[in-house]
Amino acid sequence: MYINVLKDIPDKLEEENFQSILSARSVRVERIVSHGHASPPSFWYDQDEAEWVLLLKGAAVLEFEGEAEALRLAPGDHVDIPAHRRHRVASTAPDEPTVWLAVFYDGKQPLA
Amino acid sequence: MYINVLKDIPDKLEEENFQSILSARSVRVERIVSHGHASPPSFWYDQDEAEWVLLLKGAAVLEFEGEAEALRLAPGDHVDIPAHRRHRVASTAPDEPTVWLAVFYDGKQPLA
Repeated sequence: MYINVLKDIPDKLEEENFQSILSARSVRVERIVSHGHASPPSFWYDQDEAEWVLLLKGAAVLEFEGEAEALRLAPGDHVDIPAHRRHRVASTAPDEPTVWLAVFYDGKQPLA
Repeated sequence: MYINVLKDIPDKLEEENFQSILSARSVRVERIVSHGHASPPSFWYDQDEAEWVLLLKGAAVLEFEGEAEALRLAPGDHVDIPAHRRHRVASTAPDEPTVWLAVFYDGKQPLA
């Protein structure tokens, strides 16, 4: 199903909404909509793939394991998260949908 | 250099502005800013890589060789362009910057 990334936003979200946009051999693109969601306390994402994520709407705070300072993201901000870099979503905007574009890819370096 | 994809927009653009955002083995992400630019008449892009492109701001019309109907893109619209699918930018908004996010990737199918 074709979705406009910015307009086709689900109204009510009990859980985060994941929508596959592109799926190829080397890359996957997903649209993620959060509505005040955060990762559970002391939960860390630990992913086999690298993930480049762009915040399109709303606001979010990301935490990375071992880093004292959290990363605040506004629309247009992005971050490249290497595979197995443990991270969590500390918070997203409580009063509006937060829309992410996530590009998952093989983050391994080419052989020298 | 870190750029906010939506906020760090060059003021005056004689030519389209390309900004590399992510460069990995399997995928490249670029931010492209057009300001009324279009492809030259009868010019066609013919690329070795597949390109998934998302329009973030502004407006654009894309043409694909052999297709009578052009594709009008509004913010949030996206299109996946296979490698060597010949296409051109017929127009972009004349009165505001048009901001694209382009994901270039290896579009070859996995071996069966």
